[in-house]
Amino acid sequence: MNQKQMLRAHADAALAAPLAGCNTADAVEFLNTLSLERAVDTLAALPLPRAVKLLEAPELHRAGRLVSRLPGVRAAALLGLMADDRATDIVLELEPAEREQLLPLIGVQARQVIQTLLNYAPDTAGALMTTEFVSVPADWTVAQTLQHIRDVERTRETVYAIYVLDPASGQLQQVVTLRRLITGRADASILTVAQANAPVTVDPLMDQEEVAQLIRRHDLLAIPVVDAQRQLLGIVTVDDVLDALIEESTEDAHKFGGMEALEKPYMQIGFLEMLRKRGGWLSVLFLGEMLTASAMQHYEDELARAVVLTLFIPLIMSSGGNSGSQATSLLIRSLALRELRLRDWWRVALREVPTGMVLGAILGTLAMIRIVIWQLGGLHDYGEHWLLLATTVAAALVGIVTFGSLSGSMLPFALKRLGFDPASASAPFVATLVDVTGLVIYFSIAAAILHGTLL
Amino acid sequence: MNQKQMLRAHADAALAAPLAGCNTADAVEFLNTLSLERAVDTLAALPLPRAVKLLEAPELHRAGRLVSRLPGVRAAALLGLMADDRATDIVLELEPAEREQLLPLIGVQARQVIQTLLNYAPDTAGALMTTEFVSVPADWTVAQTLQHIRDVERTRETVYAIYVLDPASGQLQQVVTLRRLITGRADASILTVAQANAPVTVDPLMDQEEVAQLIRRHDLLAIPVVDAQRQLLGIVTVDDVLDALIEESTEDAHKFGGMEALEKPYMQIGFLEMLRKRGGWLSVLFLGEMLTASAMQHYEDELARAVVLTLFIPLIMSSGGNSGSQATSLLIRSLALRELRLRDWWRVALREVPTGMVLGAILGTLAMIRIVIWQLGGLHDYGEHWLLLATTVAAALVGIVTFGSLSGSMLPFALKRLGFDPASASAPFVATLVDVTGLVIYFSIAAAILHGTLL
Repeated sequence: MNQKQMLRAHADAALAAPLAGCNTADAVEFLNTLSLERAVDTLAALPLPRAVKLLEAPELHRAGRLVSRLPGVRAAALLGLMADDRATDIVLELEPAEREQLLPLIGVQARQVIQTLLNYAPDTAGALMTTEFVSVPADWTVAQTLQHIRDVERTRETVYAIYVLDPASGQLQQVVTLRRLITGRADASILTVAQANAPVTVDPLMDQEEVAQLIRRHDLLAIPVVDAQRQLLGIVTVDDVLDALIEESTEDAHKFGGMEALEKPYMQIGFLEMLRKRGGWLSVLFLGEMLTASAMQHYEDELARAVVLTLFIPLIMSSGGNSGSQATSLLIRSLALRELRLRDWWRVALREVPTGMVLGAILGTLAMIRIVIWQLGGLHDYGEHWLLLATTVAAALVGIVTFGSLSGSMLPFALKRLGFDPASASAPFVATLVDVTGLVIYFSIAAAILHGTLL
Repeated sequence: MNQKQMLRAHADAALAAPLAGCNTADAVEFLNTLSLERAVDTLAALPLPRAVKLLEAPELHRAGRLVSRLPGVRAAALLGLMADDRATDIVLELEPAEREQLLPLIGVQARQVIQTLLNYAPDTAGALMTTEFVSVPADWTVAQTLQHIRDVERTRETVYAIYVLDPASGQLQQVVTLRRLITGRADASILTVAQANAPVTVDPLMDQEEVAQLIRRHDLLAIPVVDAQRQLLGIVTVDDVLDALIEESTEDAHKFGGMEALEKPYMQIGFLEMLRKRGGWLSVLFLGEMLTASAMQHYEDELARAVVLTLFIPLIMSSGGNSGSQATSLLIRSLALRELRLRDWWRVALREVPTGMVLGAILGTLAMIRIVIWQLGGLHDYGEHWLLLATTVAAALVGIVTFGSLSGSMLPFALKRLGFDPASASAPFVATLVDVTGLVIYFSIAAAILHGTLL
């Protein structure tokens, strides 16, 4: 070792030192706090298996940028050793030019797998799956299978489910769990410990949310992905599904809040990207909400004659939006959990109309009480026709809350019917939808009740 | 067999027939579609192990009511044979009187476990855990452990993690995974295949969301629950966490929509319960929103003099609510995923103020363009001071969107600081908070800009 090499080894040891003795999750958190440059140096200095473990953690921030800044050979070695589903995720984060440079450096076997996985759309079973599973032909014995698992254990993401293939056709035939396998007689056929039911399988194009529901329903640790010929393409493991579910519920929450999903932690989003994700929807909603100004312009004469009507506009409009937001959040979840199907829409409508009417009546009563107390208590003078005004407000509330509940509950169905994700229905979107109609309902009721008196 | 018994056996066979050959998940779905009475009869007619499997599925609806209607001895037998964590969930669904009747009928061992688990608050690791784990003393060999697992496999929820206890103190010492165990030399100490790091453990009082995050961060199949003396109380498995997470994200979605979490599928909620869950929050929000009427009353003179101001009230108010809803949904998720801590609130505030100002400026520009086009295009006459009016609206939008973003982002922090769940901050709640202030901002800016002209 010459002096330069010694200095280098010394620097590497210093970089790796803070990570010695801490587990992967803590090491990842530490790495996340470092500057990009320092994190790259640390990742370069760590022993290869350790660096692989860190890169495999989905909690590691900036994984793509870290890999692109590592020396090409090291980056390729790391990607080749990683779980192939995670390696694919990282390759997807690279710029096209970086990807083209890096891919040829990866070992041929790992590269081919990554290139196959790259072809599946994100958020599908195919993109989520790993090809590192254990499969054995159906004519093996328990002992043969156990020995095989001992040999390959280190290189497989999970060995708890063993896939039994037809020796002739290669089709997936049965699943054996490791817990049942170890209870089997050594010289017995592997089929003696196989599960009685036909294995639950998924198609590579199935949406990850449905994959998660299947894994959950059947309490599986992994689910096999097969093609039309029942050839085993890969498996989706429960920990990948857990990550996918958490990611998906974050996306849904962002969408329901009325913005594009961020896909990165709050503090890691650049200022411009944050503006784009929020400003887009905010502007669309704003343009929709401009219809309220048009509606108000239409009733400008009525407003000038009865300014007292304007006092209750915010109150009435927000109640419509609130009841709509409740109904939408209810139905988005029910559709996501498959508690309800598209064809159930009319049953929901039949429930929402009476629910909305009663809720509207409750709010209408509160509004009447308020106006009566303020008027009789001398807190505010609503004019000589205050009782008619109170009736108008109460009747408008019944109409608007009913309309809000109904349209809020139908919106997720409509989106699903049109092929969109029902979770794209957001609280602000429903509110905007209800606001314009709410104004029209309010002024129409006012015209009917107050005609000849205030109007 | 006398004739009555034969008839009975015949009827049982008829009831059980539709379930023959279908897997647990499908059988559960079928049971969910039956009337309560028929589902009870079916459950009574099925072989005991099959009925246990069905009751263990968290997707089974009405589990508590089904069990309470079964003959006491059969119900007790089923609960005794079930996974203890799920049995506890079902016992929790029973009426207190039913519970007192049923518990003494359950075998003493299972009963004691259920009674212990009943003491943990719902949504904690203690309530989620099972006591059916595999533990061995640290002085055992690999072969001894494997033989033990073969013996007890049928009665344990998972055997993929084996907990190694100190033989003297009984404290949790190490964790061995089954995959590593089968690679060990038969006569070697169990410690030779143990994980290098100290096991990650949780306290029985830890919230289920934090348990889920730990399981996810460390890619575990189960996490041990220990008391202050490091005695192993139970384990929480990944499938329970998956269920808990899905349940929790449904609750959060309902809360964010501005209602109490339903805790049951939409179609199973009674009409009155639905009204209660939605009407409560709707009324609270309505009472809060009444402050807008008070604010408007305060500005009634200004409104009478400049009716044109009212045209933009819905537009301006909804933009404040929308930007607040965006910020709240962002921060709720960031806090839930532990991307941000309580102490980070000022960093968020420092980002939200400029973000809100730019977003407000974008909307303000759109509003100006709209007023200019309508005025110059002859679509509507906003009066001689229309340019001042446009300036007022634009300035108000900057103020209100900034205020909405700031208060929407600070609300989850405030709730967390006060010991509430940040997810209780709902889109309608933020909108209500922002609406009143929004009106005050609008009228104050109008007073400043339009003083001497319109006002």
